[in-house]
Amino acid sequence: MDAQGSYCILDEAGVRRHLSSVPDLAARLGGAPAQWHIREVSDGNLNSVFLVDGAGGDGLCVKQSLPYVRVDVDWKLPLDRAFFEAAYLRATAPHVGGAAPALLHYDPVLFCLVMEQLRPHLILRRGLIEQTIYPRMARDVGLYVARAAFNTSGLARPFEAVMDDIALFAGNQTLTRITVDLVLTDPYRETARNRWTRPWLDNIAAGFRGDRALKSAAMRMGQRFLTCPQALLHGDLHTGSVMVTETDTRVIDGEFSLFGPIGFDLGLFVANLLLSLFAHACDPLADGYRDWVVEQAGAVWNAFRDAFTALWREQQEGGDIMPRALLGQADALRIEQDAMVAGIFDDMLGFAGLEMIRRVLGFAHVLDLERIEDARRRASAERGALGFGRRLLVERGAFASPDALIRAAREAALELAATRA
Amino acid sequence: MDAQGSYCILDEAGVRRHLSSVPDLAARLGGAPAQWHIREVSDGNLNSVFLVDGAGGDGLCVKQSLPYVRVDVDWKLPLDRAFFEAAYLRATAPHVGGAAPALLHYDPVLFCLVMEQLRPHLILRRGLIEQTIYPRMARDVGLYVARAAFNTSGLARPFEAVMDDIALFAGNQTLTRITVDLVLTDPYRETARNRWTRPWLDNIAAGFRGDRALKSAAMRMGQRFLTCPQALLHGDLHTGSVMVTETDTRVIDGEFSLFGPIGFDLGLFVANLLLSLFAHACDPLADGYRDWVVEQAGAVWNAFRDAFTALWREQQEGGDIMPRALLGQADALRIEQDAMVAGIFDDMLGFAGLEMIRRVLGFAHVLDLERIEDARRRASAERGALGFGRRLLVERGAFASPDALIRAAREAALELAATRA
Repeated sequence: MDAQGSYCILDEAGVRRHLSSVPDLAARLGGAPAQWHIREVSDGNLNSVFLVDGAGGDGLCVKQSLPYVRVDVDWKLPLDRAFFEAAYLRATAPHVGGAAPALLHYDPVLFCLVMEQLRPHLILRRGLIEQTIYPRMARDVGLYVARAAFNTSGLARPFEAVMDDIALFAGNQTLTRITVDLVLTDPYRETARNRWTRPWLDNIAAGFRGDRALKSAAMRMGQRFLTCPQALLHGDLHTGSVMVTETDTRVIDGEFSLFGPIGFDLGLFVANLLLSLFAHACDPLADGYRDWVVEQAGAVWNAFRDAFTALWREQQEGGDIMPRALLGQADALRIEQDAMVAGIFDDMLGFAGLEMIRRVLGFAHVLDLERIEDARRRASAERGALGFGRRLLVERGAFASPDALIRAAREAALELAATRA
Repeated sequence: MDAQGSYCILDEAGVRRHLSSVPDLAARLGGAPAQWHIREVSDGNLNSVFLVDGAGGDGLCVKQSLPYVRVDVDWKLPLDRAFFEAAYLRATAPHVGGAAPALLHYDPVLFCLVMEQLRPHLILRRGLIEQTIYPRMARDVGLYVARAAFNTSGLARPFEAVMDDIALFAGNQTLTRITVDLVLTDPYRETARNRWTRPWLDNIAAGFRGDRALKSAAMRMGQRFLTCPQALLHGDLHTGSVMVTETDTRVIDGEFSLFGPIGFDLGLFVANLLLSLFAHACDPLADGYRDWVVEQAGAVWNAFRDAFTALWREQQEGGDIMPRALLGQADALRIEQDAMVAGIFDDMLGFAGLEMIRRVLGFAHVLDLERIEDARRRASAERGALGFGRRLLVERGAFASPDALIRAAREAALELAATRA
């Protein structure tokens, strides 16, 4: 904070000053502030991020909202996403256990979060690219979504608590606008923001823009995204928002948080696993890894479903959605659970389709595919992803179970692998 | 307002003082404040209402929130429902034309609205009881719901505007709690608030509390009520919330307003028409009137559907739901309209079922039925209403069109009439 107590962009010296002004943080780092080791590791577009280590063992991570997009300082952005990330961490922390970094401090003037430093965690997307196997990851993520979603929903709380939170997160409009434009809309219309692997995908991109059934399905999923506030969502749960080791999984970057359909978080995550699958289809050395990746899509869903239904079954009080007083005995509960879980599964498939398509035809692509240097080979993998994404939107009624989803994805990837010769 | 500028309950003298302190209102009344004619006409439980006439022709209606329930001053209530009624009137006024009373002044300290006085309008429920025919009423109400719903939804506005309004009306929790308890929950469980015509309805009341299929349908409609913010709703659109003459229709009392599924407002209104139908089934002199009443249920729906789809078709800009950029040509629009309208129709039937049941088994009954003094005859009409309400919840898939709904309701009422001998 500067002398006037107003916002300023923190550089290394600013970070040092800020942390030393908060006794708890300074104590956690240990030693003299001048001795702290500070590294800027910003890699997103919207924030600066510093890792700070002191004399003690526990490092800190400092994340500050920037008032512009890093690649273009004339593209102004409000700062309040840090507020919503802090609000998301606070709302979910009581429920998700150690599956998120601990929020240690939030400064509402600097729009700056200080969290525990995750070490030696790696961004999951990087691990997937390097074909690392994470035995707990899928189960941890499914459990995380189940706990965060169930406990912030009206299944677990009086509607008043839910409506208070809906009102709070309804303010997170800058980043929700990004989702509405980039995920729900842009890939199906002409706009300067779109980009794809030219010229190989020109035809399929044009075809998607004229594809009535696809656009209808995309619009209906968009409508669900905006008019179905079942629970507090992470809002951007791709494989770049998860940090992993072989024994630990943490969900980070909740700045897109909002109330919406539970299947949205699951769909984004599963889509990014499937994008990894199709990206690896071009690589003859990845035949075994692909099997593991596609199985994780099913494992995430199964872990979510098991945890979500168990939380619902075991809760004592209940909320105003499906109230205990009306639900009665176990078999009635099972019927309602089956219906709700089927709806979430259907949403997951639809949102996964949107995510797969927008990561190939829209503004923001994924490194899994971008790193394939040969454009023709990249386009081939991307075409596989687009085709599967389209099926998830238009024909998702055909995927009656996670097994059917996995089987279809594996077959599509095998088909693609067969063409690589 | 008292000398300290804090809330006080207005009596006649207080109303006179308040109105004379606002020059526009005093001028509208005309003449000296001492000469104004003030009548208290409060008939609800939650507010006091005064009609004020001055030397000019335009009278005023003054409505103030009370801090307690009139029948029990120890039952405390927050005052803010007046704020939400004013917010609702302001949000809908640009769209509904003259179909609501004009809000002339709102005092946030006194929680007091001043509106134009409606004269010689009668509460529609009274008119229905007196078997009066209102040629425009159904069309006007259908048009009102279409205009209010469409223009406050994401079909007509960017999601940011909708989310701002969702956040605003998410504060209206005291009255939403009443809906959650009294409409969605109480009739299906034992609670001291419930009452019904004993002993004749004891069996059916107990049966409903043990009726798995019915409770499942009720819970699912409750879930839609709380997790489907399609548009700004009136929230309490029964026939006591509409004032009519033969040539004019006004919707009043928007204090229950909230974001929810559009079919909720339609369902409550249609349910109250059907309650009138079943109430008149006992009256041999009402054979012709019943035909008119049941046709109005269809006419409300048809007017809504025609206006809603026309507004959607004719709008220039559009919103983020079903965005213009993706919707394209007229036949794609028609497909999306059909799907959305079918969903609203289904919601309307389900919410109508909830409303019919709660008006017979729950806390708040309707005068249409209450005025039948012979308890056995009243119970007979009520049993007809309960049976039809249950069908609307459990078998509503069988009502594929408004015509099917009208036909079934007419037959059920005829059956009931045949038993009255």
